[in-house]
Amino acid sequence: MSMMKAAVFIEPGRIELVDKPIPPVGPNDALVRITTTTICGTDVHILKGEYPVAKGLTIGHEPVGIIEKLGSNVQGYHEGQRVIAGAICPSFSSYASQDGYSSQDGGCSCHGYKPMGGWRFGNSIDGTQAEYVLVPDAQGNLAPVPDGLTDEQVLMCPDIMSTGFAGAEAANIKIGDVVAVFAQGPIGLCATAGAKLRGASTIIVVDGVEQRLQIARQMGADITLNFNQVDVVEEILHLTGGRGVDAAIEALGLQSTFESALRVLKPGGTLSSLGVYSTDLVIPLAAFHAGLGDHKIITSLCPGGKERMRRLINVVASGRVDFGALVTHQYALDDIVAAYELFAHQRDGVLKVAIKPFA
Amino acid sequence: MSMMKAAVFIEPGRIELVDKPIPPVGPNDALVRITTTTICGTDVHILKGEYPVAKGLTIGHEPVGIIEKLGSNVQGYHEGQRVIAGAICPSFSSYASQDGYSSQDGGCSCHGYKPMGGWRFGNSIDGTQAEYVLVPDAQGNLAPVPDGLTDEQVLMCPDIMSTGFAGAEAANIKIGDVVAVFAQGPIGLCATAGAKLRGASTIIVVDGVEQRLQIARQMGADITLNFNQVDVVEEILHLTGGRGVDAAIEALGLQSTFESALRVLKPGGTLSSLGVYSTDLVIPLAAFHAGLGDHKIITSLCPGGKERMRRLINVVASGRVDFGALVTHQYALDDIVAAYELFAHQRDGVLKVAIKPFA
Amino acid sequence: MSMMKAAVFIEPGRIELVDKPIPPVGPNDALVRITTTTICGTDVHILKGEYPVAKGLTIGHEPVGIIEKLGSNVQGYHEGQRVIAGAICPSFSSYASQDGYSSQDGGCSCHGYKPMGGWRFGNSIDGTQAEYVLVPDAQGNLAPVPDGLTDEQVLMCPDIMSTGFAGAEAANIKIGDVVAVFAQGPIGLCATAGAKLRGASTIIVVDGVEQRLQIARQMGADITLNFNQVDVVEEILHLTGGRGVDAAIEALGLQSTFESALRVLKPGGTLSSLGVYSTDLVIPLAAFHAGLGDHKIITSLCPGGKERMRRLINVVASGRVDFGALVTHQYALDDIVAAYELFAHQRDGVLKVAIKPFA
Amino acid sequence: MSMMKAAVFIEPGRIELVDKPIPPVGPNDALVRITTTTICGTDVHILKGEYPVAKGLTIGHEPVGIIEKLGSNVQGYHEGQRVIAGAICPSFSSYASQDGYSSQDGGCSCHGYKPMGGWRFGNSIDGTQAEYVLVPDAQGNLAPVPDGLTDEQVLMCPDIMSTGFAGAEAANIKIGDVVAVFAQGPIGLCATAGAKLRGASTIIVVDGVEQRLQIARQMGADITLNFNQVDVVEEILHLTGGRGVDAAIEALGLQSTFESALRVLKPGGTLSSLGVYSTDLVIPLAAFHAGLGDHKIITSLCPGGKERMRRLINVVASGRVDFGALVTHQYALDDIVAAYELFAHQRDGVLKVAIKPFA
Repeated sequence: MSMMKAAVFIEPGRIELVDKPIPPVGPNDALVRITTTTICGTDVHILKGEYPVAKGLTIGHEPVGIIEKLGSNVQGYHEGQRVIAGAICPSFSSYASQDGYSSQDGGCSCHGYKPMGGWRFGNSIDGTQAEYVLVPDAQGNLAPVPDGLTDEQVLMCPDIMSTGFAGAEAANIKIGDVVAVFAQGPIGLCATAGAKLRGASTIIVVDGVEQRLQIARQMGADITLNFNQVDVVEEILHLTGGRGVDAAIEALGLQSTFESALRVLKPGGTLSSLGVYSTDLVIPLAAFHAGLGDHKIITSLCPGGKERMRRLINVVASGRVDFGALVTHQYALDDIVAAYELFAHQRDGVLKVAIKPFA
Repeated sequence: MSMMKAAVFIEPGRIELVDKPIPPVGPNDALVRITTTTICGTDVHILKGEYPVAKGLTIGHEPVGIIEKLGSNVQGYHEGQRVIAGAICPSFSSYASQDGYSSQDGGCSCHGYKPMGGWRFGNSIDGTQAEYVLVPDAQGNLAPVPDGLTDEQVLMCPDIMSTGFAGAEAANIKIGDVVAVFAQGPIGLCATAGAKLRGASTIIVVDGVEQRLQIARQMGADITLNFNQVDVVEEILHLTGGRGVDAAIEALGLQSTFESALRVLKPGGTLSSLGVYSTDLVIPLAAFHAGLGDHKIITSLCPGGKERMRRLINVVASGRVDFGALVTHQYALDDIVAAYELFAHQRDGVLKVAIKPFA
Repeated sequence: MSMMKAAVFIEPGRIELVDKPIPPVGPNDALVRITTTTICGTDVHILKGEYPVAKGLTIGHEPVGIIEKLGSNVQGYHEGQRVIAGAICPSFSSYASQDGYSSQDGGCSCHGYKPMGGWRFGNSIDGTQAEYVLVPDAQGNLAPVPDGLTDEQVLMCPDIMSTGFAGAEAANIKIGDVVAVFAQGPIGLCATAGAKLRGASTIIVVDGVEQRLQIARQMGADITLNFNQVDVVEEILHLTGGRGVDAAIEALGLQSTFESALRVLKPGGTLSSLGVYSTDLVIPLAAFHAGLGDHKIITSLCPGGKERMRRLINVVASGRVDFGALVTHQYALDDIVAAYELFAHQRDGVLKVAIKPFA
Repeated sequence: MSMMKAAVFIEPGRIELVDKPIPPVGPNDALVRITTTTICGTDVHILKGEYPVAKGLTIGHEPVGIIEKLGSNVQGYHEGQRVIAGAICPSFSSYASQDGYSSQDGGCSCHGYKPMGGWRFGNSIDGTQAEYVLVPDAQGNLAPVPDGLTDEQVLMCPDIMSTGFAGAEAANIKIGDVVAVFAQGPIGLCATAGAKLRGASTIIVVDGVEQRLQIARQMGADITLNFNQVDVVEEILHLTGGRGVDAAIEALGLQSTFESALRVLKPGGTLSSLGVYSTDLVIPLAAFHAGLGDHKIITSLCPGGKERMRRLINVVASGRVDFGALVTHQYALDDIVAAYELFAHQRDGVLKVAIKPFA
């Protein structure tokens, strides 16, 4: 049991399956045997070299699995227990975490903040696209999975549900709100579901792929707009009688979606941004009402921790939302290069792929 | 009593004193005899033609005066009573006001939102740089002034205190926060005072004029930085041990101050923007942590209404803050063109001028 | 058109239909011809003399109707337009309203607060159980009804939806919360629907009437408990593994429901109270953790105003919630005494009755 | 170095100094050599047997000291470093902590909540009235003290500043608020200081001891009322023109102070409760407006953790508040029985005593 397979970053354009030692388990760690994981859009950025990580690092940050071994200080769990952990695995001891920003957890030996510091799997430590993953600060990060739920049902909790719902939460939605969501990829679809869960009564979603707009309706969208067919800014302003939306959620990471989100926003409204941008952003003066529109622009990074995961699992268990339609494909870990190929090119209507190391 | 003097916008570059009829008083109005008013930076934008208003409009939005005549529906006040009204005079009946955004009050015959719609004096209706001003929706906008306070003591309430404090309020300051305020003109100085009132324990202020930095210390600044002498971004990061500030308040309206505010912000921090911008704004990718820094950018327009004014007057009456140092000059209304000349060119250490129509 | 029928309070135990003059319309008023109204539990308190009102006052505070005549200052509406108004009709000019507490609107000639002051219909002015009602401060209180909705569909907006949803809003529900709602009368049922709209994933409701528990399931309840069959406190603690609920909503107004709500609450949880109490309340020391449990007890009075009504109408129009099952009976205004008889004694499975003055 | 002196609970009425082994240091612990500690009102409850703890437990929860030995997993600190820790020492890994309620931290092997579970020193583990204390979960709880500050200056941070400020924070104070604080013992005085730090412009404090009312003025009180001389409810309603206060802070733990706090509260206001009660509480119906007054009753338990301590130390370092007047007496640890005698009987104008194990 001393070696395992893991998908690692070799160089820009190459993620490959290699053999690696199974890591030793420190007192605050847990070793988890991965039963299901998945590929995220961020992983594709890593593959392309657009987001730099260390060569040889195991990629992936969405674990479902079984506790193989617990660190000596970790209490209240047992080996053999089925768990997930968030994509973001904070220490929860840091100044940032105690201040309410655990995703920006800066560890312990500095001032306590590190941008995106809570994101460790597949970023600063080995990730989940492997047979085993070492979960740091396991006491705060392991979330038990109830027996009645399948791996696929909880596979979205570690990242896209947490991120998408965070977008809706940051949008400060009130009952009766009109909300627009720009882009309906996996995270945008979760933001749509989140907006419905928070009480939005009119949810307008925008994408260019009809299949995604169809799924959006299942997630709670009331109105779907295909940007290939209409001027979405004009249409949303028309639909709201010129008033604009109470909140706009950006779920892609482009200047165009960011800007459209601002242009459809009522004075006093909130632009909740989830996208990972790769360029400077421009705020157009007129849409910003010269800074006098009581606008709020809020960015969110996926909340982690066992309490967040517990709540998301509760939502799945309640049947409030069914993300089953999001897992469109399944691969063995051995075939992960093919899975990346499919996912990176958005072929075959792929939304999320389930990766099974031991299937 | 049928005619009055008023400073009106003639054309770009010209504001002049003219004779105008004293307006008739509708059932929900109040006519106020101005005893003291002042000039705002926004008025200078109007003078220069940078912010368009109708030719012939009376300028000014900061009234202190005496109720001359009350509309038939206005109750609980009496003629001869000393009052102020906010620079922003909402209807309070609109959808926007009831939704919590009275500064974006859209009146009544539309969907209920109008960007900056609550700002009427010297913008969409005749303003306060005159012998008399008609206060609309007087029931919601007239705030009595206690006997013990001078005109000068409450002159800052209608606009700069309300705006500056709103910048501190929107910054979501917590006890023990480190806050940076960029620019220490009248509004920036009020933001500094507001940050102290909310419990910031380290307030770092930035300006290029030593006199203003001196006054900032009286307002609550702990550390003053002159941008002519230091690289303020580098210095603030140094002062915070690389952590950044909890909140940064922008009080000028330039790309450079906006950008510096973002660059010194901790992950999870709030950029509270008060400036009136005149160009598109650029959000630099790195400072924005690609949209993953849990940052918040919040803009605020001066809150108005009698309750807001009552609270600000309470602060003045409590002696918590003394804005006496801000009124550096006094002019008769007859000399308002000279006052504009001084104020627009920031001559003679001017901060705010008191304009006295009947002195 | 000078006289109308109205149900007035005669003396404890007697509400009767009498003829009254149709009131004159002041500049800020609107006269509304009632097409549908209903009876509230509070009206029964009035009938019984438990809540004192002036003899001769017209009762009722839930109007659906047609604008018959508009005051001269009311803009953006037209006569013949179909509207509702909230049970609570604030002035929106008062200090209390501007401070965020419009239900406690104190009018204008005092310090600005009056407990329950926003509740005027059938309390301090003539109410809605009549052929016509005069809506004060109509500019802020008239909410247009879209053509596609029936009177019955919007009849719950003025009071029970607004109250029940307010209970859920005040409970500070987060996605994934476990919420208990005590009592499933009309307001409790709306609180259940509100809890679902805010993202609660496990909603446990308590009542003693099976029919109401059945309807609660349609409104979003996941678990229903009949207090005649189980010890509800014990059962809820069991269901939550001893943790308690994140929020408990009290929707009746008794010591027993208030106390049970506290006993099932987690440390840090919120007790959101909607009931109208008629006795002092006791907070048990142990359930209150001696004041060290980070508990919150929050009371809410039905929010009013056209913006609130607009949002509730949006929820109805979206199909998110269907309150159709709540209107169990219909009466002509002529038969209102019989309607009171039925409603006060909770006969025949009554939940809400539709009263039709012109049917 | 294997034995130390410690003040332990023997039986009701007896706390005595005994010899105990210095505890071993686990991987996540730190051993701190106490240089200064103090006695809290809660300790007197323990002494009297009113709050039960295990016989032989070391009492005290307010540590200032030097790191003697660090656990193997604790990073970013060094032995010899001067630190404090909060009276409340959460694990920060628990569900409760991640949910925002670290004072109710339930540890790890249960559902995650335990009422007051974060309070461990002198409650569930050995406390600080000893030569050494073992700090659990040291990574999240040790807060470095800057060189320029004396022990006495930071001695109030672990408990009374954190508690008193929490009372002001929970009161949701806005700039310009009128706030009443009931009782001006050490925690009430800190609540007064906290109310000022949050922007209250009129702070009315109530006590029966003139010396405390004097100190209250230094802490920020604008108006002091001696309940032996005036009817404080009547007087506060008079001072506010019948409106009531925006927030009332209860800082004692009696029915009478709780009730008075409610009676002076405006509709919509917040009663922030800090007291440790020893009886059931009664909410009077009229003062509660039958549950329709939009009232909020919020209890708070002292927030802990290194981030909270860091912020409080910042406040001390800024000079915003000077709690120097609160330390009225000093004792060697050897004389702690005498210190309890003085403190429990409130003799000689005592507010807080500094206890020095090594002086």
